[in-house]
Amino acid sequence: MVRERNSISLRKLFAANLRREREARGFSQEHLADLAGLHRTYVGSVERGERNISIDNVERLAAALRLEPTALLRKQP
Amino acid sequence: MVRERNSISLRKLFAANLRREREARGFSQEHLADLAGLHRTYVGSVERGERNISIDNVERLAAALRLEPTALLRKQP
Repeated sequence: MVRERNSISLRKLFAANLRREREARGFSQEHLADLAGLHRTYVGSVERGERNISIDNVERLAAALRLEPTALLRKQP
Repeated sequence: MVRERNSISLRKLFAANLRREREARGFSQEHLADLAGLHRTYVGSVERGERNISIDNVERLAAALRLEPTALLRKQP
């Protein structure tokens, strides 16, 4: 009953939004990771939807992109 | 640089939104936990902002409340 409303998981949606917003700024994964205080390989795995990212790190990545966190968690922000 | 835009953390905002939406439905923490497939004590600690909740569990709790995840992550949804 948990996933009845969306065929794409929130994790995958976040991953796609993160990659798109990062690329729109011309940032490498390494640069975004540096801005957010995270590791490059971690950002890469988040963008592939491999990591069950925590809310604190969602906040860090959104702040690094100067976006509201919700902008990374909704369809077509 | 990570937290320059909001004085309240995303974690605390989620915690407050979750509690408000749960109470608005007259759900106990245990009932919400059951709906989401989580443990009652976990939901309690999330509502107190003690847990760095993962995106998968944000999705579960939002689905249990029949809300979009973003409704739990923005100010005054």
